[in-house]
Amino acid sequence: MPEHEFSITRKVEFSETDMAGIVHFSVFYRYMEYAEHAFFRSLGRSIVDPYLGVGWPRVHCECDFKKPLKFEDEVKIHLLVATKTSKSISYQFRFHKADSEVARGAITVVCVHRNASGEMKATNIPSEIADLIEVAPADKLAD
Amino acid sequence: MPEHEFSITRKVEFSETDMAGIVHFSVFYRYMEYAEHAFFRSLGRSIVDPYLGVGWPRVHCECDFKKPLKFEDEVKIHLLVATKTSKSISYQFRFHKADSEVARGAITVVCVHRNASGEMKATNIPSEIADLIEVAPADKLAD
Amino acid sequence: MPEHEFSITRKVEFSETDMAGIVHFSVFYRYMEYAEHAFFRSLGRSIVDPYLGVGWPRVHCECDFKKPLKFEDEVKIHLLVATKTSKSISYQFRFHKADSEVARGAITVVCVHRNASGEMKATNIPSEIADLIEVAPADKLAD
Amino acid sequence: MPEHEFSITRKVEFSETDMAGIVHFSVFYRYMEYAEHAFFRSLGRSIVDPYLGVGWPRVHCECDFKKPLKFEDEVKIHLLVATKTSKSISYQFRFHKADSEVARGAITVVCVHRNASGEMKATNIPSEIADLIEVAPADKLAD
Repeated sequence: MPEHEFSITRKVEFSETDMAGIVHFSVFYRYMEYAEHAFFRSLGRSIVDPYLGVGWPRVHCECDFKKPLKFEDEVKIHLLVATKTSKSISYQFRFHKADSEVARGAITVVCVHRNASGEMKATNIPSEIADLIEVAPADKLAD
Repeated sequence: MPEHEFSITRKVEFSETDMAGIVHFSVFYRYMEYAEHAFFRSLGRSIVDPYLGVGWPRVHCECDFKKPLKFEDEVKIHLLVATKTSKSISYQFRFHKADSEVARGAITVVCVHRNASGEMKATNIPSEIADLIEVAPADKLAD
Repeated sequence: MPEHEFSITRKVEFSETDMAGIVHFSVFYRYMEYAEHAFFRSLGRSIVDPYLGVGWPRVHCECDFKKPLKFEDEVKIHLLVATKTSKSISYQFRFHKADSEVARGAITVVCVHRNASGEMKATNIPSEIADLIEVAPADKLAD
Repeated sequence: MPEHEFSITRKVEFSETDMAGIVHFSVFYRYMEYAEHAFFRSLGRSIVDPYLGVGWPRVHCECDFKKPLKFEDEVKIHLLVATKTSKSISYQFRFHKADSEVARGAITVVCVHRNASGEMKATNIPSEIADLIEVAPADKLAD
């Protein structure tokens, strides 16, 4: 049965903080990707799959930062599938520290293959992946 | 006279690439911040100023990725001041490689001071900074 | 009873790879620090402890790289306490992928406090920490 | 005429600092690599050269940290070629802030090509590169 959400937790590392004493904002984007890749593993797949031979470049990313994260904070990253087309997927990401939402982000990826000259071209998401993923219910996304 | 734009160039470093052979998307956010801080220096200020005692956390960031950047590419980052309120500034960032726009991003920062318990609270942008910065003309922003 | 070793596992993340398709060498140093901080947590302490008020800057680090690590590799990091003086600790780190040693590194940290002007000065390791850590047996270190 | 040294300057970026208010130690390794790659460019070459088809994985790196670097510090990185064999090069790196040496590091790289299965094997440094690089005089290295 296809999945529409996934959650994973990680602990803030020292090297992810900056001189303001908080997690550098660029790290939240690495956190989102971390959740995306763990989502694929939870489906029994890897984002890097030589057999399928597709890549997933990001075409749009955004994030709203509400509260800072600090060293050794436990952060829960909740991924929701927001949209899905034949060639792209959009994810929503909600970051929680305890019960408090600290950030909310989004990433849109496009499925690509590389042509003979190495250039990336949008392509249909292979059914091996597409069949495993579905859009989350509207009420979950609107929350 | 207040400024509304700034440009700076940097060369893609090896450690900024990922196994897809291109600049990791999270690095574009570091590039935007790099341009923002160089913009402050171009105004004769530093984003970190113990005398003023304010910080500039990001509350919203986004980026559209159009073309990949590769190792040793020369990338021009063009900053435009998009909005300015008493407590916040929004910047637009355009990334060019040669004449081609490879990405376009935006960052909104809020000016904060820290209260006695170390918590960040929004505060008015000090006039030492506010007087140096103005919103870019609408036609430049709409380009 | 004081401890002299600790092991932890992590999975290689996409953002830790470079265009050569392997983990960027600078990331191994972050992995070592990650293991060091998890070692402290395993002792019931945190490397950042406002009550103790000491810091642990690195004064020497090194690493021998034997085999590359790739995306989603499971890497085991084994920390051994190599030396301990009143003011410093040296750790040895062994990186394994399955049964194969892929790298071996070392970090020496000095315990410091900050004087009134914010400068770091070497100081005795607080007994709260020192009593929890002992040097590993010579045969383990020579392995 | 072959070269044995090279210097380059960079300014510490905000994202390179950590919650201790100083440059994270892992960043010094990125700085060393940055100087190495700029050294190659100063010789009219690139470390990534599809025509030559060799790679330069690091087999040993180390660094002694003497003084911290802070945001917007101007750091000069001085590279010296310490040893050179048919298949490897060792570099020494000296970091200065104004007249003060803040760190000293070393990197040994091996020249490799990839065999049919993608595994890296040591190979002779192509003459196009080897002829451009010579070991620094002993007195400079011993300084």
